[in-house]
Amino acid sequence: MLLRNGITRGEMSKPLLGKSESDQSYSELSGMTVGILGSGDFARSLATCLVCSGFKVVVGSRNPKISVALFPATTEVTTQENAVNKTDVIFVAVFREHYSTLCDLKEALAGKILVDVSNSTELNHHHESNAEYLASLFPKCMVVKGFNVISAWALQSGPKDGNKQVLVCSDNKEARGTVCQIARSMGFIPVDMGSLSSAREIENIPLRLFPSWKTPLMLSLGLFVFFYAYNFTRSVIHPYVTKGEHCFYKMPIELVNVTLPCVAYVMLSLVYLPGVLAAFLQLRYGTKYRRFPGWLDQWLKHRKQIGLLSFLSAALHAVYSLCLPMRRSARYLLLNAAFRQVKDGVENTWVEEEVWRMELYISLGILALAALSLLAVASLPSVGNSLNWREFSFIQSKLGYTALVISTLHTLTFGWKKAFDRSQYKFYLPPTFTLALVVPCAVLLCKVCLQLPCVNTRLTQIRRGWEKGRFVRFQLSEESGLCTEDFSNDDTSNV
Amino acid sequence: MLLRNGITRGEMSKPLLGKSESDQSYSELSGMTVGILGSGDFARSLATCLVCSGFKVVVGSRNPKISVALFPATTEVTTQENAVNKTDVIFVAVFREHYSTLCDLKEALAGKILVDVSNSTELNHHHESNAEYLASLFPKCMVVKGFNVISAWALQSGPKDGNKQVLVCSDNKEARGTVCQIARSMGFIPVDMGSLSSAREIENIPLRLFPSWKTPLMLSLGLFVFFYAYNFTRSVIHPYVTKGEHCFYKMPIELVNVTLPCVAYVMLSLVYLPGVLAAFLQLRYGTKYRRFPGWLDQWLKHRKQIGLLSFLSAALHAVYSLCLPMRRSARYLLLNAAFRQVKDGVENTWVEEEVWRMELYISLGILALAALSLLAVASLPSVGNSLNWREFSFIQSKLGYTALVISTLHTLTFGWKKAFDRSQYKFYLPPTFTLALVVPCAVLLCKVCLQLPCVNTRLTQIRRGWEKGRFVRFQLSEESGLCTEDFSNDDTSNV
Amino acid sequence: MLLRNGITRGEMSKPLLGKSESDQSYSELSGMTVGILGSGDFARSLATCLVCSGFKVVVGSRNPKISVALFPATTEVTTQENAVNKTDVIFVAVFREHYSTLCDLKEALAGKILVDVSNSTELNHHHESNAEYLASLFPKCMVVKGFNVISAWALQSGPKDGNKQVLVCSDNKEARGTVCQIARSMGFIPVDMGSLSSAREIENIPLRLFPSWKTPLMLSLGLFVFFYAYNFTRSVIHPYVTKGEHCFYKMPIELVNVTLPCVAYVMLSLVYLPGVLAAFLQLRYGTKYRRFPGWLDQWLKHRKQIGLLSFLSAALHAVYSLCLPMRRSARYLLLNAAFRQVKDGVENTWVEEEVWRMELYISLGILALAALSLLAVASLPSVGNSLNWREFSFIQSKLGYTALVISTLHTLTFGWKKAFDRSQYKFYLPPTFTLALVVPCAVLLCKVCLQLPCVNTRLTQIRRGWEKGRFVRFQLSEESGLCTEDFSNDDTSNV
Repeated sequence: MLLRNGITRGEMSKPLLGKSESDQSYSELSGMTVGILGSGDFARSLATCLVCSGFKVVVGSRNPKISVALFPATTEVTTQENAVNKTDVIFVAVFREHYSTLCDLKEALAGKILVDVSNSTELNHHHESNAEYLASLFPKCMVVKGFNVISAWALQSGPKDGNKQVLVCSDNKEARGTVCQIARSMGFIPVDMGSLSSAREIENIPLRLFPSWKTPLMLSLGLFVFFYAYNFTRSVIHPYVTKGEHCFYKMPIELVNVTLPCVAYVMLSLVYLPGVLAAFLQLRYGTKYRRFPGWLDQWLKHRKQIGLLSFLSAALHAVYSLCLPMRRSARYLLLNAAFRQVKDGVENTWVEEEVWRMELYISLGILALAALSLLAVASLPSVGNSLNWREFSFIQSKLGYTALVISTLHTLTFGWKKAFDRSQYKFYLPPTFTLALVVPCAVLLCKVCLQLPCVNTRLTQIRRGWEKGRFVRFQLSEESGLCTEDFSNDDTSNV
Repeated sequence: MLLRNGITRGEMSKPLLGKSESDQSYSELSGMTVGILGSGDFARSLATCLVCSGFKVVVGSRNPKISVALFPATTEVTTQENAVNKTDVIFVAVFREHYSTLCDLKEALAGKILVDVSNSTELNHHHESNAEYLASLFPKCMVVKGFNVISAWALQSGPKDGNKQVLVCSDNKEARGTVCQIARSMGFIPVDMGSLSSAREIENIPLRLFPSWKTPLMLSLGLFVFFYAYNFTRSVIHPYVTKGEHCFYKMPIELVNVTLPCVAYVMLSLVYLPGVLAAFLQLRYGTKYRRFPGWLDQWLKHRKQIGLLSFLSAALHAVYSLCLPMRRSARYLLLNAAFRQVKDGVENTWVEEEVWRMELYISLGILALAALSLLAVASLPSVGNSLNWREFSFIQSKLGYTALVISTLHTLTFGWKKAFDRSQYKFYLPPTFTLALVVPCAVLLCKVCLQLPCVNTRLTQIRRGWEKGRFVRFQLSEESGLCTEDFSNDDTSNV
Repeated sequence: MLLRNGITRGEMSKPLLGKSESDQSYSELSGMTVGILGSGDFARSLATCLVCSGFKVVVGSRNPKISVALFPATTEVTTQENAVNKTDVIFVAVFREHYSTLCDLKEALAGKILVDVSNSTELNHHHESNAEYLASLFPKCMVVKGFNVISAWALQSGPKDGNKQVLVCSDNKEARGTVCQIARSMGFIPVDMGSLSSAREIENIPLRLFPSWKTPLMLSLGLFVFFYAYNFTRSVIHPYVTKGEHCFYKMPIELVNVTLPCVAYVMLSLVYLPGVLAAFLQLRYGTKYRRFPGWLDQWLKHRKQIGLLSFLSAALHAVYSLCLPMRRSARYLLLNAAFRQVKDGVENTWVEEEVWRMELYISLGILALAALSLLAVASLPSVGNSLNWREFSFIQSKLGYTALVISTLHTLTFGWKKAFDRSQYKFYLPPTFTLALVVPCAVLLCKVCLQLPCVNTRLTQIRRGWEKGRFVRFQLSEESGLCTEDFSNDDTSNV
């Protein structure tokens, strides 16, 4: 679960700014004139935001008389030629397919900074990125890619927490620095992405569709398919083959309902497995200054998504379970049981052990779901941001492990003595819950090992900078030494 | 569903700033002295915020010796006369009923800027707005309305995403510009509202009670009343009239539970209907640069609220359904059924078709609710802000239509063959679910038409700026051309 | 319920800034050189943030050649001696245990500002705070504590709403002022905490674990234990002692399920009790300018937490209730009831009164839970921030009291006639619900009294500044006079 989203640790070590940037002081910018070509939504929002940030704005339009009414009163709306002549920084708010119409301005634009703010319609649509295409059309200009990740809406309403970064790239360092400063004056956080060849990457960003969710989603789907097929074989195929019973009606609800908890449970343990592995690697390396292998790094970064999918599965399992007594099949089975009980003349069918098992089973399930719900609420950006580091760590680590332990007990009370009952081994396949228990129990066991005093002391030392066979290093690399093993990817950065 | 809240597209085209504003440079402001009359909560918070933003603050109080302890150490607390003489911009942090007590200062205040920060206690309480009343008392002053939308709490804790805008109006352009700049230096986003006659409107803003929810709420209430009455007639009145059966006990739960899904389902389709209508209008106009009629514009703006009310109804429907087996009446009916089965000697009452219908029905219901839940979570401001445009569009459009399709299947499995069963037409009234199906099915049908290649291509062209009988226009009006029909109100702005 | 979190009203009256601070103008800061000792995560994040904010940064490292690759391109990475000589403000990003290694620099550091950004590993770990220890090592330096509450992550990604405050303290006023300004230039909100003796308090902040939740949590646990023991005596001990019946199976679910609603209900009333008490105190004092006793102040500040715990209990109660029919025990009891009904030959067991009671009881429960859910959603930071004062007040006061009234009706329909049935008084103990009703009914009664016109008018006057036996005071102390009794702690500030 759990890393705060946004900037990942990997990105943290990347310098945000180019060399030339801080040479220009802010005061040079105030009152600077910025040009915009185009008069669409984006051009207008950009003009408003620039004016609000103290810039003078001149807009170049093909129909300046019509366009003038659409822009803030303080902007100058004029012909394209006029606009271009009045300023050295020009935002090109024009669709890619119309870039060629700007060729008349080639002379006037020479030596100026052109900011390409456009986006593609689909991933890797054209051979070269829009910005590179613009640069090929105007070889004498300094083309800078930027602001495409910002929507017209964000420009108007001011930068929001989640959409503050403006990614900028250019082959010209000075031009890049100037645009970075303009972005900062507008309240955004510029991120220097290097040369113009990064333009494609930047243009792809607004087209990305939940990139961090892809692997976790495939993982949970895979687990679902596996456990569903397994349960299908045991609960539907087996009675059909051996006794000729038709239980296909179980497919939409009952089978899904025994599959979901397995997915939820295994996924929850997969949230904590990489932290445990990272701790073992650190113990083996004897230092925290050695990078983890790539797959482990990726896994550590996706814990939040894995955790949320685990919660989603658990919540669905709860809803499915609650719906069970509502079904017609449950009603028929109950009525038939009543009929049989009367026929058999059994006054009381009470089985104390079964009663206790169910009460404990349901009770533990509710508690596990409650713990997972708190974890899910704490991963909402606005809630997570209001926690300090220790609170965040407490919720994600302590509460998370508590949920894992309760889920294990929930699974065990469900299984009860089934694992030792030969009739449960249909087609020689062990009951599903025994399969689901493997990974979580391994994680809990490793976690217990890491808590042993001798191991724990060494790990704490390593995380405060101690290194095997070397003097104690000299730095403050954590806020407070509170990083527990669940945040051990924080320690992956080299020093 | 659900456009991001905050600034609507309609407001986007409005210039935020007056002409005179950007003429003053920021540097003139730093170190500027600002006066405050009053020593209440708001005055103190304002003083703190101004000091934090680099202003010198002088407070005019009737009891400067007592008040001085309450203000930041760097503020000067003195008599009202002294304070007024030391500065040209004075915030009047005094209740309307005490404005007249300031009349002694009339001479000293002449020619200065008075900022009225007060609020009314109720909508349109007085004949004229507070600011206009202040202006009438001090005709020689430049009265500016502003900062009333900001709470003392927001001043202290710094501007938050949701409360950043400071609406400003005045008859004097320069005064307005100065106050706008002060607001910007304090970290707020000033919005120029024109002349002082807008003061009433600005004063009414903090008194508004969920204005964007009013129409959607009335709509859902209307639907609820209609469907409840319809169900009441069919399920309670009809058996009472025809057979003398008392089914009034169904009123609190069963009837509500068959009414809520109809409301949820129809409301969900009403989220997508305006997008479909807008697409047809654009196809007919042959351009996206023609304004939609007012009612459609309003409808497009309220989709988020309609969608959330649909989710609320669906969630309540789920809870009501889960509560059904808990009721005493369900228990009695079940026991009576068991009694009858035993008396009739029927060993097995299993009806395969009924079993399958219910399993599918419940299963589809859970999936529809899960989809709606994801939509609801994505409409939380902090979650929505962290999505890029394509992700937001994917969730609200693709996932929303998926929910609509699943809900339709859910409704159809509920209805099953009832629509063709004459005994279901009580008082010649068709079953409720057939009524609920009308609008959603129409929406889905239109949506399918719009997906036909010939129609879809034309629509995409129009949304990228193509116009019937005109040259291709020259601008970038969307961030990425990704605006699908569900966001077609983005295209209503004139260019 | 639920004051907006963050700054509490008590803190509001505290001046945020020291005297010397605003004397330095911003312009002096731009281009200023700042030093950093250390090259860990925190040092690197700090360097990036400072560079982004326009500072020149020089880093002192023991291995400048190795470290240089880790810092932004514009920072100068050099030896510690060099770095110290180039600047007057030095951030010490080094663990406490390595402070002594800096002693070689004593000469070079004399007269300079040292900013201690370190944290402790546990509360009050050492005899003196880290900052005081640093000051004792470098008596000729001006040691300032600060930035420890900000995580490396927050420095990198920019200040967020919830983590904007930088607490600063120092024995030297000028040094404090300088660091405050640096913090402000970086986008944080500095809070002046006075002399260096506050360092311990500041260092403890990142170690605090939900301090505002402690009392409410203990309160709800206490209520849970009391009601659970009470129910256990009545439902388990009593039948065991009097009839020898074993009902211990009720402990995990049934008993918890009758205990949780009592906790939820009493907690909800405790949210509104302090507001009512505050109103009575204000009426008695005849002014709002007199402080409430400390316990009431604390209570008023914890209403949000109490309300959320009430919601949590209510939600758990709902889930437990929905799980009831799923249990094996419920199944056995139902089958046995069917058996008995058949044996007794009763065709219809329908009891109209029981049916109506349950339908109303469940129906009211769902409505109460829906109201509480809306309250809980509105207390999410991102949702609460987007409401204006009147909307916030409407939700927390009007909707909250509605939830309390519905809960009361829910409890009464649950109890029905049990309070008047002698057999319910087991061990002479009255039914649980009668105990739970005491506090909520008292709160509702007091609230009704406060709504009487004569009382209400006086209270409104007091809240607009009127005082018994004194002239009307002269200030604007509320945004809009909308503070109802539920926000009466807003009125506790002295003027």
